[in-house]
Amino acid sequence: MSTLKEQIAETIRNYHQRGWSPATSTNYSFLDENTTIWVSRSGVDKSQFSAEDFITVDKNGRPTGKYAGVKPSAETLIHCVLYELFPETKVILHSHSVFPVLMSNMYQQEVPFEGYEVQKGFAGETTHDATVRIPVFDNTQDMIDFARTLRSNQARIRHHSFIMRKHGTYAWGTSLFEAKRHLETLEYLSEVQYRNVLLK
Amino acid sequence: MSTLKEQIAETIRNYHQRGWSPATSTNYSFLDENTTIWVSRSGVDKSQFSAEDFITVDKNGRPTGKYAGVKPSAETLIHCVLYELFPETKVILHSHSVFPVLMSNMYQQEVPFEGYEVQKGFAGETTHDATVRIPVFDNTQDMIDFARTLRSNQARIRHHSFIMRKHGTYAWGTSLFEAKRHLETLEYLSEVQYRNVLLK
Amino acid sequence: MSTLKEQIAETIRNYHQRGWSPATSTNYSFLDENTTIWVSRSGVDKSQFSAEDFITVDKNGRPTGKYAGVKPSAETLIHCVLYELFPETKVILHSHSVFPVLMSNMYQQEVPFEGYEVQKGFAGETTHDATVRIPVFDNTQDMIDFARTLRSNQARIRHHSFIMRKHGTYAWGTSLFEAKRHLETLEYLSEVQYRNVLLK
Amino acid sequence: MSTLKEQIAETIRNYHQRGWSPATSTNYSFLDENTTIWVSRSGVDKSQFSAEDFITVDKNGRPTGKYAGVKPSAETLIHCVLYELFPETKVILHSHSVFPVLMSNMYQQEVPFEGYEVQKGFAGETTHDATVRIPVFDNTQDMIDFARTLRSNQARIRHHSFIMRKHGTYAWGTSLFEAKRHLETLEYLSEVQYRNVLLK
Repeated sequence: MSTLKEQIAETIRNYHQRGWSPATSTNYSFLDENTTIWVSRSGVDKSQFSAEDFITVDKNGRPTGKYAGVKPSAETLIHCVLYELFPETKVILHSHSVFPVLMSNMYQQEVPFEGYEVQKGFAGETTHDATVRIPVFDNTQDMIDFARTLRSNQARIRHHSFIMRKHGTYAWGTSLFEAKRHLETLEYLSEVQYRNVLLK
Repeated sequence: MSTLKEQIAETIRNYHQRGWSPATSTNYSFLDENTTIWVSRSGVDKSQFSAEDFITVDKNGRPTGKYAGVKPSAETLIHCVLYELFPETKVILHSHSVFPVLMSNMYQQEVPFEGYEVQKGFAGETTHDATVRIPVFDNTQDMIDFARTLRSNQARIRHHSFIMRKHGTYAWGTSLFEAKRHLETLEYLSEVQYRNVLLK
Repeated sequence: MSTLKEQIAETIRNYHQRGWSPATSTNYSFLDENTTIWVSRSGVDKSQFSAEDFITVDKNGRPTGKYAGVKPSAETLIHCVLYELFPETKVILHSHSVFPVLMSNMYQQEVPFEGYEVQKGFAGETTHDATVRIPVFDNTQDMIDFARTLRSNQARIRHHSFIMRKHGTYAWGTSLFEAKRHLETLEYLSEVQYRNVLLK
Repeated sequence: MSTLKEQIAETIRNYHQRGWSPATSTNYSFLDENTTIWVSRSGVDKSQFSAEDFITVDKNGRPTGKYAGVKPSAETLIHCVLYELFPETKVILHSHSVFPVLMSNMYQQEVPFEGYEVQKGFAGETTHDATVRIPVFDNTQDMIDFARTLRSNQARIRHHSFIMRKHGTYAWGTSLFEAKRHLETLEYLSEVQYRNVLLK
């Protein structure tokens, strides 16, 4: 287990360095071999995030065992619902990177990416000759409400990721490797789309 | 003490690497357990800044003790006044990063950030559904004059930070961690706002 | 041999860090002293790429020897054809960096760079006072078709590089050093051209 | 001596990492205690530049002593003339960074920077409340001709730096520290100016 924990912690520190988790924001989770959910605890400086900053929670996002008194990330419930809706998921990443946030200012319901080779970074996509649509959901501080939004929009989430408006992205996968691929694919496509729109 | 000094020095070198303290510019300070002010001395290359580059000053910014002959940063008085006006402050950071400077070209009195999740990086903000207003003050080389500006505008400084026009940002907190959070929050929001305006 | 392998692997990890190989995408190859082609295998996280991730293939891109069962990069055939068409080539690099992709949205047949000193980064260019034209080819998932495109456009490829539309760049050279120079030259010129067009 | 050599070599590798010396381009020099000129030799990958890559040249840019057979940078004569025209100079840096190159597309004779705090990074500037004018000279491959341009425009070079059109910047100082300060100041101001113009 410690290996995956360490690898995710390293990914987090790396994403912080890239400017994807400014201040203390963003949160991360994974499922261990007993299908226990481990989520990043609240308020940690992501430049210093270590494997010890993960805590266990139950299906409703409440800390369990020796972590009962520790405060998990405020968005823990989002992680729990994603593991429920997409049961193959093992790792969930979250980013506040600038370009997907700008996408959510440009597009109301979903961001369409069309004709880019890197779209193949999303599992199941085998050609550039397609349109990938990433859903955009309004931001909220009410996690129970947002969990409801995710449930009712499950069918629209076809690429292991979504954008929260003026907030950031969630991306996940069956491994850290796949989760990273989905997150980096969405980040890259958002940057290209943004820079391309400026040309017009 | 040396630990906090070291941590701030590391933060400074990191910010230099990000391009937030070009040339020798920018300055930093902290309060030790005896409420003595330590401020970065003048003219140090920030890529090489070390814990030894902090010197003690009195409430008026004059070097004290064994540092009596050393030249503190030209903006030391700003630090002194901030510790006086906001007595809970322990660490003050300063940046010349590009995006807040661009904000000060776009907005005359204050920069409004509205609806972004990262606004919660400012202590006391609990929702994205709000407008955060960061004051912009004209730049000056007369620190006594600027100290007066800070005093008379104290009520407008509600988010532990401000922008000096065509100069940079100051941000502070009750710990290095909080000061960094405020600085990085302002930096991030300025970048998003700038890039968003280009879309229009 | 291991030295060149190591050097290319280090280059790949460095390019990943710069954002030129998001997700798992991009691929790389070199020719050893026996003119055997070594190509990066499929699906490796480029942040972790090591010398062991290269495998040998024959002139048609089929894995050979002990690598017979391993899956090479989907674009291996492009590498094979380039070694055939430009026999002095020893190293081939590929990037998905953002700016050349944006160039391919702006220009249909070829990207003209004019009057920049860095154009001399392309072997054979001795002055800034010239126009360098880099061909743009439509992207495809059919590598046999693309190999045909390369063969029939060989005469248009005069600067050891080309752009695949909405996909990325290929650049090569008689050494890793020269291949890097060509790739970085194309990347730099694309960024300058993009940023310059925004001014208009 | 070896210390300054090492420090400059480290600066070069750092600038390469920032994208200021793409491909093999850019060149650097310093004066040792015997006023001998040391200049970077031609064609070295700047990501690998080491102290051993400096060679001695005479006042006309010809390699001397044991370096007689080695090829110095093509722009060596520019360094020699700068040491002659500005005799206090000890270190000369050169960059191909993107933003000053964009400035040279926007301004014909000189780039005016006005009202920015960072202008104080140029030696002798004591206030933001001024206009700093950096001369822009047309690029050429004829170094003897360019040396003439520098001589006849000496009076216009008031800030220890200039821009070569569509080529890059030269900046120098009485120490590595000052030369870096001048180069980074020009780079920063060019980025701010560029991004500011996009707002209009």
